[in-house]
Amino acid sequence: MTEFHPSGVITLTTDFGLEDPFVGVMKGRILDRFPGARVIDVTHSIPAQRPAEAGFWLSRCFEYFPSGTVHAAVVDPGVGTARRIVCVVARTHALLAPDNGLLAAVVAGFPDAQTFAVGARALAALGIRQVSATFHGRDIFAPVAAELAAGRVAPAALGERLAGLAPLAGTDAAAVGLDARAPAPAPLPAGIEAGEGGSLHGSVVTIDHFGNLITDIDSARLAALRDVEVSIAGQRVPLRRTYADAPAGELVALVNSFGVLEIAVRDGSAAAALGVGRGAGVHVRPTL
Amino acid sequence: MTEFHPSGVITLTTDFGLEDPFVGVMKGRILDRFPGARVIDVTHSIPAQRPAEAGFWLSRCFEYFPSGTVHAAVVDPGVGTARRIVCVVARTHALLAPDNGLLAAVVAGFPDAQTFAVGARALAALGIRQVSATFHGRDIFAPVAAELAAGRVAPAALGERLAGLAPLAGTDAAAVGLDARAPAPAPLPAGIEAGEGGSLHGSVVTIDHFGNLITDIDSARLAALRDVEVSIAGQRVPLRRTYADAPAGELVALVNSFGVLEIAVRDGSAAAALGVGRGAGVHVRPTL
Amino acid sequence: MTEFHPSGVITLTTDFGLEDPFVGVMKGRILDRFPGARVIDVTHSIPAQRPAEAGFWLSRCFEYFPSGTVHAAVVDPGVGTARRIVCVVARTHALLAPDNGLLAAVVAGFPDAQTFAVGARALAALGIRQVSATFHGRDIFAPVAAELAAGRVAPAALGERLAGLAPLAGTDAAAVGLDARAPAPAPLPAGIEAGEGGSLHGSVVTIDHFGNLITDIDSARLAALRDVEVSIAGQRVPLRRTYADAPAGELVALVNSFGVLEIAVRDGSAAAALGVGRGAGVHVRPTL
Repeated sequence: MTEFHPSGVITLTTDFGLEDPFVGVMKGRILDRFPGARVIDVTHSIPAQRPAEAGFWLSRCFEYFPSGTVHAAVVDPGVGTARRIVCVVARTHALLAPDNGLLAAVVAGFPDAQTFAVGARALAALGIRQVSATFHGRDIFAPVAAELAAGRVAPAALGERLAGLAPLAGTDAAAVGLDARAPAPAPLPAGIEAGEGGSLHGSVVTIDHFGNLITDIDSARLAALRDVEVSIAGQRVPLRRTYADAPAGELVALVNSFGVLEIAVRDGSAAAALGVGRGAGVHVRPTL
Repeated sequence: MTEFHPSGVITLTTDFGLEDPFVGVMKGRILDRFPGARVIDVTHSIPAQRPAEAGFWLSRCFEYFPSGTVHAAVVDPGVGTARRIVCVVARTHALLAPDNGLLAAVVAGFPDAQTFAVGARALAALGIRQVSATFHGRDIFAPVAAELAAGRVAPAALGERLAGLAPLAGTDAAAVGLDARAPAPAPLPAGIEAGEGGSLHGSVVTIDHFGNLITDIDSARLAALRDVEVSIAGQRVPLRRTYADAPAGELVALVNSFGVLEIAVRDGSAAAALGVGRGAGVHVRPTL
Repeated sequence: MTEFHPSGVITLTTDFGLEDPFVGVMKGRILDRFPGARVIDVTHSIPAQRPAEAGFWLSRCFEYFPSGTVHAAVVDPGVGTARRIVCVVARTHALLAPDNGLLAAVVAGFPDAQTFAVGARALAALGIRQVSATFHGRDIFAPVAAELAAGRVAPAALGERLAGLAPLAGTDAAAVGLDARAPAPAPLPAGIEAGEGGSLHGSVVTIDHFGNLITDIDSARLAALRDVEVSIAGQRVPLRRTYADAPAGELVALVNSFGVLEIAVRDGSAAAALGVGRGAGVHVRPTL
């Protein structure tokens, strides 16, 4: 189902950090337009040049928010240029982002998703006229999200329906296999290549607060294999169910709560232990 | 009074950090169950292996929230194992946490507190069925907190009444004197030993954003002494009323706004000045 | 217009950071007094000794919040001393801060602003009696902001009308030209000196999450010049419209979305590239 009926909830995902007033100012603009909005921060720590990382997280977590949530995502190195803004409707949610590939993972993961441009005519009709060259989060994303959440404009009324997204911008286009230009073969989740003999290859998409390495290898792919061997940075890592199944200080691989393969160190940091970062290759081989 | 009448307010205390979507996803699950919830972050910067630090802060600050607040605390190295989840009702508040000693300071500080297990039957009755092995914050704590805050389940309906908590897990069991296994002698606050000749010994429980060293020495203990000398890391520190009572750059001890002894540097960082961390010993001696 | 009609929205700007429960406890006190309050964080990362930086941001962003917003700002090295607390009404907003110069930029930028003391009698009338020596954010600012936002007390009822603010406290009094003691010549925004031959001199007030250097040189001053040359740390920087108008990795100056001159590096950090910090001098010279 791809119908959007607003719940009044808006989430924010940006690279703005929390040290400056940028996120607060976005919320001020939202409440100014729609006093009943309930705004939730997803994260403001996306690396500045990695829109795909925002899209990875959104594709993995948007369904945990109430049906009818508007998700505004602003990782936007092209702000102030002619790049488009798009609204993707996936399941019962509306996702708003610059058309720089940020939403590629959502579009890839939800084939029924519909994509609309956010057009100049709709912005004018919503009274969005004074737009700075550098802060569209405040001047466009916040008011459009507020109007969507308030039910005063529908995604389809924002502009023309689009067949696809622009290619991924930023430094992660190559590193992360989420480039919208190259449509993945249908049954294979974005970013994963099937290797020889049923083995899987993916990469580290993001590193969390605990130093856990979160990959783009979907659990659905792992499920097809009986017994597997996970390797990263030249090390073999046993696949377990939860962190506590490993001895303290030891490497452990698991399917995390967002449905992807994760490499962790129990009571420690896998990123520090392995000395690897975003983009590092991860391999899974059947052992039977 | 230990009756809980929900106000609709929920607080969150975790070790999740704010860089990742984990906290936002918890809020999404809360609003999905209870759209009227008002959610407040207490802190998401508890060190991963220090559940007692979360409990220290909660015991010192929960009463500043509205009567009828649900406090969900998730510092949970044992997630996915057989460790229990408990709900403690203290004064008019409900506190939800893994049964790893996190709530020991609350139970020690409020002798009328009642402790209930969160049982599998209650979870099933609340429709909480799909539970991951690694993210109970999202899959159990968020929905249970929402149901408690919405008034649709009472703490006592979550499971059997318990006589006590499991012992403290994590690295701070030894360092911080908050281990629930060893009940402190009644009139002495948890974590403080009475030394010879009326002197007091405690330790640094946490270090705040300013580098202030916050101890487990309660002001009630200090009040019994007339004039005191505070020492830490081999240095004597004068006891004053507020930061500005010390010259800039100088060490000062004071009873902070949460009722415990704190060592600070005016306009500076005591942690940096003294080079000490959590667990450092603090001594108070009467000078008369 | 300087009338204040509360909207129920409260913003918070502090130096408390987000690692500790201080901000959460303030919100707890607010909701306890006024359950309908909607609270927005502006920033909690103001450097501890720089109240003027809080004032700079507030003066540049308070109007993006709904009319009738209460802005509570707590950067307060003099907490517990005899320093006053003030409430400034500017446009339709109420701003609450210690009287340490924090609000100097607001008062300088909005000549119609009215300043009121927060007096002991008003606090007593509001039932604010138990006040710690070290945490007025919780014990005074939170309840007063809640009462203002709830419409139960008017700014003018808090205390006597004041002719001006106390001078700026903290280490930035000298570095940043926002000292309220020295009233700037009328048509010149605070903190900017007109140099020889129409050139402008200002300084870096704050550095944002991206490493952008944000100055106190207002766009209105730049607008008077036709073509300009910006220099900082001995380097000339071209003035452009948006970040993407510069090649990746190159320095660029622009008027940012808050109306002041900013020096940035496209897809990088100007602070790191130039090795400069707060207080660094910035010069603008007409080239025609």
